[in-house]
Amino acid sequence: MESEGPLAGSFDYLSEDSYFGAKSWESAESTMLKKCFDLLTTKAGITADTLDYIFTGDLLNQCVGSEYAVKESNVPLFGLYGACSTMAESLALASMAVDGGYANMACAMTSSHFCSAERQFRLPLTYGGQRTPTAQWTATAAGALIINNDDTGPYVTHMTAGKIVDTGVCDAGNMGSAMAPAALETICQHLADTGREPSYYDLIVTGDLGFIGHQILIELSEQANIDLSANCTDCGMLIYDKEKQDVHAGGSGCGCSASVLAGYLLPKMRNIEIKKLLFAATGALMSPTTSLQGESILGICHAISIEDRRNEI
Amino acid sequence: MESEGPLAGSFDYLSEDSYFGAKSWESAESTMLKKCFDLLTTKAGITADTLDYIFTGDLLNQCVGSEYAVKESNVPLFGLYGACSTMAESLALASMAVDGGYANMACAMTSSHFCSAERQFRLPLTYGGQRTPTAQWTATAAGALIINNDDTGPYVTHMTAGKIVDTGVCDAGNMGSAMAPAALETICQHLADTGREPSYYDLIVTGDLGFIGHQILIELSEQANIDLSANCTDCGMLIYDKEKQDVHAGGSGCGCSASVLAGYLLPKMRNIEIKKLLFAATGALMSPTTSLQGESILGICHAISIEDRRNEI
Repeated sequence: MESEGPLAGSFDYLSEDSYFGAKSWESAESTMLKKCFDLLTTKAGITADTLDYIFTGDLLNQCVGSEYAVKESNVPLFGLYGACSTMAESLALASMAVDGGYANMACAMTSSHFCSAERQFRLPLTYGGQRTPTAQWTATAAGALIINNDDTGPYVTHMTAGKIVDTGVCDAGNMGSAMAPAALETICQHLADTGREPSYYDLIVTGDLGFIGHQILIELSEQANIDLSANCTDCGMLIYDKEKQDVHAGGSGCGCSASVLAGYLLPKMRNIEIKKLLFAATGALMSPTTSLQGESILGICHAISIEDRRNEI
Repeated sequence: MESEGPLAGSFDYLSEDSYFGAKSWESAESTMLKKCFDLLTTKAGITADTLDYIFTGDLLNQCVGSEYAVKESNVPLFGLYGACSTMAESLALASMAVDGGYANMACAMTSSHFCSAERQFRLPLTYGGQRTPTAQWTATAAGALIINNDDTGPYVTHMTAGKIVDTGVCDAGNMGSAMAPAALETICQHLADTGREPSYYDLIVTGDLGFIGHQILIELSEQANIDLSANCTDCGMLIYDKEKQDVHAGGSGCGCSASVLAGYLLPKMRNIEIKKLLFAATGALMSPTTSLQGESILGICHAISIEDRRNEI
């Protein structure tokens, strides 16, 4: 699916095998993320032990996707759970660790896998269940980044950690609706804290509200007198071709925003096509158990300001 | 169980109702942790919005125990998954955030609940399954701490984040064996990094290896020529009375080490009964799915050095 989408050419590695040579979907996700981590260290020209910390997590119960992926890395690990906001959460914490002087080099990474997520959160694939039009498609993808004090940038310049926003949405087939208010809350907080207007950024990219959640965000922002209409998009709208691919409301999963950021957006920053990016990754905090118990889906969004300051330095 | 154990008098709040007035075990865990959080802010004389961040996580799938506990707090949240090492992980990250100047005041907290954990990781309670002698008893407990730059201490002075240690143990009924090598690895790393001997500390407390894991740690440390025999204990051995309570290999769960640290050990530091404490919380990273798939249980341990420096200042 990801290799048939519009960003296929952006990714370092594409696999035709959803199992990645492993025997289970869970092991497949770990194998994919390990491949991603190995590519990261290779591209950076480092060995894993150069890293002071890895900040990672994923959607699987007890975050086993990321834990088994890095078990041989011999790098101190901070395990995270932020649902689809994990890429931003890991970037926030890795940036604080490096900027605060607690690490010279840290890795932030995450993954998701359509098949492991479907089995865990919805139905076994072999059941052939029908998805609602509001449902998003969990990307089978991973992204990994290195944060250090290197002067080449782009830089993480600010992070705004998100609060939980509970708007009472209970439909696990409509995550975008549950997350959009959290995205607005964090973006507004970020703009208020920094004194910036949305137009400060070349691009504000949420991940992953999908088509429905994005539309809700735009409508909510209009009501809040925040103009996001000109420069706001969503990783879940970018990764697939809505017309040609049967993804309903768009992409989702930790790996969606992680791979779009690492594969598509950051190279645009290196080429100076984008100089100022607000990466606002959103998560839907719930479990199949809490959904069955009638609990609402809690939205969260962490925003990371990434800027290229080469012209200023 | 916790109110019948030797540390009952140390805890701020004891409940005779395992449901804490809620309708499900999952909601009970959230209710308990929310109660703990409310007690924290009350004891600290602050309102929740004084906190810059909450660092929290728990054992439940997608960490719903902690997410629903703090959903009304209106505090930015970093969700963590470190299994039973979560109290140390949250302390490490909260300390970096405060010491680095990214927060004035942060909360580190976690919980576990015997009934929600049994249902999720092992068997429904109503099944009446028999536990193996090596099994530990997940504590129904929560602990929460505030980290700030206040000069009254005790202080977090060092943290050593743990690497994953995979020794091939696959028995989910024998977590202590899987975690003990990770505890040794992190304690040795901490001592090497700081140039300290085990005797530097008044107490080195792991959490939660239980009786079997602790014995393994002592044996492994002897082989490694690290003398932990004089001043090393484990939160899982402290919280219950092995003779009078049917807890097999001792306590476990994020809430065990969290409540023992917050309720029992830190008050001893305030009374200057303990001046130098190494809190080394251990986690078993796995899920029921990976266990059924034959994967080994990954051990991890994060160590936090907590010191009272009133006499030095």
